[in-house]
Amino acid sequence: MIDFSLPASVVDLRDRVSAFVHEHVAPFEDDPRCNGDFIDDTLRRELNAKAKEAGLLAPHAPKAYGGLGLDHRDCAVVFEAACWSTLGALALNIAAPDEGNINLLSKVATETQKAKWLPRLISAESRSVFSMTETSTNGAGSDPSHLLTEAHETDQGYIISGRKYMISGAAGGDLNIIMARTISSAGVDLGATMFLTTMDAPGIRIDRMLHTLDTNQVGGHAEITYENLFVPREDVLGEVGHGLRNAQVRLGPARLTHCMRWLGLAGRAHAIASAHAQQRYAFGKHIGQHQGVGFMLADNEIALHHARVAIWHAAWLLDQGEHGRNETSMCKVFCSEAFGQIVDRSLQVLGAIGVTRDTVVERIYRDIRPFRIYDGPSEVHRHALANRIYTGGPFALRRPA
Amino acid sequence: MIDFSLPASVVDLRDRVSAFVHEHVAPFEDDPRCNGDFIDDTLRRELNAKAKEAGLLAPHAPKAYGGLGLDHRDCAVVFEAACWSTLGALALNIAAPDEGNINLLSKVATETQKAKWLPRLISAESRSVFSMTETSTNGAGSDPSHLLTEAHETDQGYIISGRKYMISGAAGGDLNIIMARTISSAGVDLGATMFLTTMDAPGIRIDRMLHTLDTNQVGGHAEITYENLFVPREDVLGEVGHGLRNAQVRLGPARLTHCMRWLGLAGRAHAIASAHAQQRYAFGKHIGQHQGVGFMLADNEIALHHARVAIWHAAWLLDQGEHGRNETSMCKVFCSEAFGQIVDRSLQVLGAIGVTRDTVVERIYRDIRPFRIYDGPSEVHRHALANRIYTGGPFALRRPA
Amino acid sequence: MIDFSLPASVVDLRDRVSAFVHEHVAPFEDDPRCNGDFIDDTLRRELNAKAKEAGLLAPHAPKAYGGLGLDHRDCAVVFEAACWSTLGALALNIAAPDEGNINLLSKVATETQKAKWLPRLISAESRSVFSMTETSTNGAGSDPSHLLTEAHETDQGYIISGRKYMISGAAGGDLNIIMARTISSAGVDLGATMFLTTMDAPGIRIDRMLHTLDTNQVGGHAEITYENLFVPREDVLGEVGHGLRNAQVRLGPARLTHCMRWLGLAGRAHAIASAHAQQRYAFGKHIGQHQGVGFMLADNEIALHHARVAIWHAAWLLDQGEHGRNETSMCKVFCSEAFGQIVDRSLQVLGAIGVTRDTVVERIYRDIRPFRIYDGPSEVHRHALANRIYTGGPFALRRPA
Amino acid sequence: MIDFSLPASVVDLRDRVSAFVHEHVAPFEDDPRCNGDFIDDTLRRELNAKAKEAGLLAPHAPKAYGGLGLDHRDCAVVFEAACWSTLGALALNIAAPDEGNINLLSKVATETQKAKWLPRLISAESRSVFSMTETSTNGAGSDPSHLLTEAHETDQGYIISGRKYMISGAAGGDLNIIMARTISSAGVDLGATMFLTTMDAPGIRIDRMLHTLDTNQVGGHAEITYENLFVPREDVLGEVGHGLRNAQVRLGPARLTHCMRWLGLAGRAHAIASAHAQQRYAFGKHIGQHQGVGFMLADNEIALHHARVAIWHAAWLLDQGEHGRNETSMCKVFCSEAFGQIVDRSLQVLGAIGVTRDTVVERIYRDIRPFRIYDGPSEVHRHALANRIYTGGPFALRRPA
Repeated sequence: MIDFSLPASVVDLRDRVSAFVHEHVAPFEDDPRCNGDFIDDTLRRELNAKAKEAGLLAPHAPKAYGGLGLDHRDCAVVFEAACWSTLGALALNIAAPDEGNINLLSKVATETQKAKWLPRLISAESRSVFSMTETSTNGAGSDPSHLLTEAHETDQGYIISGRKYMISGAAGGDLNIIMARTISSAGVDLGATMFLTTMDAPGIRIDRMLHTLDTNQVGGHAEITYENLFVPREDVLGEVGHGLRNAQVRLGPARLTHCMRWLGLAGRAHAIASAHAQQRYAFGKHIGQHQGVGFMLADNEIALHHARVAIWHAAWLLDQGEHGRNETSMCKVFCSEAFGQIVDRSLQVLGAIGVTRDTVVERIYRDIRPFRIYDGPSEVHRHALANRIYTGGPFALRRPA
Repeated sequence: MIDFSLPASVVDLRDRVSAFVHEHVAPFEDDPRCNGDFIDDTLRRELNAKAKEAGLLAPHAPKAYGGLGLDHRDCAVVFEAACWSTLGALALNIAAPDEGNINLLSKVATETQKAKWLPRLISAESRSVFSMTETSTNGAGSDPSHLLTEAHETDQGYIISGRKYMISGAAGGDLNIIMARTISSAGVDLGATMFLTTMDAPGIRIDRMLHTLDTNQVGGHAEITYENLFVPREDVLGEVGHGLRNAQVRLGPARLTHCMRWLGLAGRAHAIASAHAQQRYAFGKHIGQHQGVGFMLADNEIALHHARVAIWHAAWLLDQGEHGRNETSMCKVFCSEAFGQIVDRSLQVLGAIGVTRDTVVERIYRDIRPFRIYDGPSEVHRHALANRIYTGGPFALRRPA
Repeated sequence: MIDFSLPASVVDLRDRVSAFVHEHVAPFEDDPRCNGDFIDDTLRRELNAKAKEAGLLAPHAPKAYGGLGLDHRDCAVVFEAACWSTLGALALNIAAPDEGNINLLSKVATETQKAKWLPRLISAESRSVFSMTETSTNGAGSDPSHLLTEAHETDQGYIISGRKYMISGAAGGDLNIIMARTISSAGVDLGATMFLTTMDAPGIRIDRMLHTLDTNQVGGHAEITYENLFVPREDVLGEVGHGLRNAQVRLGPARLTHCMRWLGLAGRAHAIASAHAQQRYAFGKHIGQHQGVGFMLADNEIALHHARVAIWHAAWLLDQGEHGRNETSMCKVFCSEAFGQIVDRSLQVLGAIGVTRDTVVERIYRDIRPFRIYDGPSEVHRHALANRIYTGGPFALRRPA
Repeated sequence: MIDFSLPASVVDLRDRVSAFVHEHVAPFEDDPRCNGDFIDDTLRRELNAKAKEAGLLAPHAPKAYGGLGLDHRDCAVVFEAACWSTLGALALNIAAPDEGNINLLSKVATETQKAKWLPRLISAESRSVFSMTETSTNGAGSDPSHLLTEAHETDQGYIISGRKYMISGAAGGDLNIIMARTISSAGVDLGATMFLTTMDAPGIRIDRMLHTLDTNQVGGHAEITYENLFVPREDVLGEVGHGLRNAQVRLGPARLTHCMRWLGLAGRAHAIASAHAQQRYAFGKHIGQHQGVGFMLADNEIALHHARVAIWHAAWLLDQGEHGRNETSMCKVFCSEAFGQIVDRSLQVLGAIGVTRDTVVERIYRDIRPFRIYDGPSEVHRHALANRIYTGGPFALRRPA
């Protein structure tokens, strides 16, 4: 039965998150520790401590390991509220890559691996890293099948060598999940596999920190060399050769949580622009009364609304145990493009102020641009969707639900 | 609790409608009676008879008067299925303006008026007309407050004179609902009022039939002169002076049912284009395998999906008794623009075939264009939305549910 | 030396064309002979006679055969002025396909062929046809190399069999230029060749007239079967096997003249919308004073302006003897898309009136849609441009001029 | 006579500029002095010295004062070539605000003022500032008539007080042109006036440097307080009360030179993306061979081309002594929007690399965003264009040229 009502418990949690973020998180947006290329880890720890005290840490994580155990629909509501602030996701420990890594471990790891890693990640005691992307001309990027990093099987485990790019949160990270092409001792290519290790393991070298457009990552983004890194057999995550499949286990929901988070931030940019339009006076009235500005704000609302209901739909699908591959892809394309436009319009409404750090819109403008690239650029999702239409016909004719 | 599942009864009705439209309605799309400027009434009667026999006539109308009594959510599902064919809405008697007029009468008419009109409209025995639009330079159009048509109060009722434009279904129509500025016998402007009359009443003259881009209206679109038309007091619909308010009673849901119907037809255009892309061969492969075409089809799916979930949301809101003013406006803008693009892309995928009547896409392309104009052009909705943001702030901050 | 001034002679010709079209051509836009699926040939003859009398017939054609001998730049200016009216191109005999066919013959035909055909085409005594497009699943469309129509070599000439689609002006046409895959008497595929024949030759059958979205073609668009049509050897146009190459000789300039013509008509639609916006009153002022409308009109001007200067540039290039392949492709994509939007916005500004034949905008809206498809759909041009960037780098780096 | 050929002298100068920028300027793009919020003045001086040595400094400036005396058309060609590098405009001393200030002084200043200021600005000995924008709720921004800064007439001159925002190049600047509302000693508002002063004059205080999205301004952008700044009567620039009129003298050409400069940088971003697309391999071929990427590059070329010819047209108009108000406005809107999209697409083609400083595209992406805001945001230009259509009809009907 089609229903969009929220249970009282979710409304209550959302409102508590909202109040927490307004009072305890947003004031840190001007903190010098988040005004450089990336965010300093001491700021993260300070915010995590506040969230823990408020009982709001890691709402998405399994209760058994210390989270609040929300389902995807509840997450949709709570993540939007949390991401009113650029620091909200960090504060609640629902930011990438940790949020997706926690989810991946919950689904794919052995009980031993879970017991070892989930408590410290969920409690925000340590941070995690996901090492997949490569950018050499022929390496793994949008097409993860092009893995050049290799893991060679030995008696006790695997020896990994290769080079990774844009590895978020690497500096200061603890757990490192590495994706590598696996070669058996007999020299057979077994396909991609995920490996667990720690950032301080011998054989891992951060070559350099990347200077990036975005600013909001604790530990920044790094280029990393793996040189004869040893990973024992018991630290394989999931099965050997199942790396790409498990990447999808991680990426499906991770795509959607990105949408949820950016929904909050796009809404914030819109709210700042709306308030400015109510006050700034030019050409005989408040600029919000000029249709040129008013229509931009109306378009913001339209996009926010259509994004939100589709996010809720995809979250519902995942809660039903569906993989929701098409729906999360469609959400990802729509949200990344529509939210980018919302933030762009909000900046435009602010005029000269918009390009300065006098509001947080400038930062959101920078931080949201990679959203159209990570977790599959729009082009890769459109390609996958088109391929499924070509092979199976229009989605609606397949009658999902 | 967020839920997108459909009750078995709705699925069953949807599937019956779907089968009925495929088997009994779509074959008439090539009937010469729908190949001119508008649709001949004999075709409508033939299709209505089939729908009646299938038990599918007027699913939206109150059970008490012969309909199936569906709520807005059920309508969303059923209307989409029905409008797989350009003739589907007509067949099921859920086309404009009758669908909206039935809804208006159900909500605003007196019991006597309902008893007189609803049975014959719901059974499709006769058709109805809604006379609001004027297009003289200063008349009622997007801004309905500019009514130039006047109703002068007399002892027994009202004498109406004026000129109306784009009056759909007028030729051959029975009931005629007229909107006119009301002047009391003392000469006081009482505001807009709705009046019930019949198309054959003395004082009504169809001046000419308009040649229009669209083709799918029974009875076409007319320009009408009212000259001293007498309407007795008991045929006032709703209260005197409440015309604009009641127009909103009609237009809110009517906007949404337009979205539901066009969702079906946009999906049809997309399905035809998708099938063509699977078969047409050029530059070394099927055109659906070229990203240039495939991305267009992917964008179609994305737009259809985001439209559908937002329509369902607005329908749910109306079912909760909310007016859903912002949500139906946002749906209307999004759907009318996105569906227009879907049909345009579908035509483009078809190439030269697309501009011919060799598929029904050409007709849908023509028929859908006015959707961005009627029930408030996009500009009027954006203006209204912008005004509500200016006066009340962003919608999300008001926390609706 | 960069210069955009027009010689006095061109200004004079433009102004005479402009006055002629306003006074003698535009009044026929309401003539019933152009209100059906296509234009009746008697109307064309009437208009051609007027143009002849005014000394304005076939301005683009070589002087030696009766034209005015304009170069491409002059054509750009004159065609825009002529196409203020939907009937302007027809009146001046500069409409497709004749305009392009005259150009093709002038460049590729033998002197004998020219002497036979050019005088009667340029004087508008008879009309011509270009038979290339096929639409069976695997036939020639966007990819003309897929020709299924075959010409088999015999002792005296060729026997042609096949099926063509969307053949404009076929009904009532005289000269017919056919593109067919040529098979030597030894069974060798010699590639595509162009053949000259007449529409009344035995072996040509118009199977049916297509019902199309557009309305402005004399003789409409037909589906044609060729069955053992004999063409003598001397009626080969250009060389055997050079069909695709010669199609490019025709299509390069033809693409550009389409842009010139549609520039005129897009300007007309904009002018009608602008005048309406100055008079129609709603929400407290003329609608042209609302930014929602005003910005649409501003965008029209911006697009018209950028299209015009680029058309002039490409015309200059052609006048220098360059093929201007990239530039005419870029113009074609830009103009077909931008003009479509201009007409769409103009219709939107007109509101309900816009979808009726009360202005000529409705007709322009219908007629312009195929412009994004014929002479290579946007997708084919983008593909060709992309391929040249991929193989040769950005165009500017090659330093043209 | 329409002509797009370039004189040999211009081609030669362009090629020398191009070679100079590739060899001597672009290598500095990684210099740490341009990697912060703004560019250090020592880097500028170093680059200016190189340009001086190459005989390429201040090509736009009057010969009489040390420039090369190019007209607007020549500037269009040379500025594009210079701005292949983010540092090119700075090196040649053709960057804002100096380029526009030099132009303004050349046209409006007294001979004494010219003799005093032009030599040192044109030789790049010192830099200049233009103080117009205010952003308090009711101050001068898009609508410069809202000046809150006031100049009160005294016996010897004027006492200026007020607050300015986003004043580019203020730190380290020499000449400061201030726009202020002028109040006569009798208390009469005489309208806006421009005043010349120096940044080290008593009464000028830089309150703070703004943190901005863009990075490419020497001296950054400042917020400034004027407190009882005295300006003697002879340092009025132009006439008292003619400030807004003279701002237009500056802004018309300044708008166009912005377009010229950004044309170069948009072309650079496109070239970097094109090269990447030729080398990066994914999903079975180079990404430039996928239409999803190839079409983006094709759209870049189309936009660059249409922008360039329109810039050349506007430059020609200015060279004819026309104000070209509509044309420079149309160029500004088209270029700022189209170039922003080009850079955005180029970044997207680069994928993860695009959001890092591993190419200069990331910097161009940041630096170009304000282009849609300064010199009149798109909304203000559309408003002005719309207003002229409303009052005078479509531009083409006025027959310019």
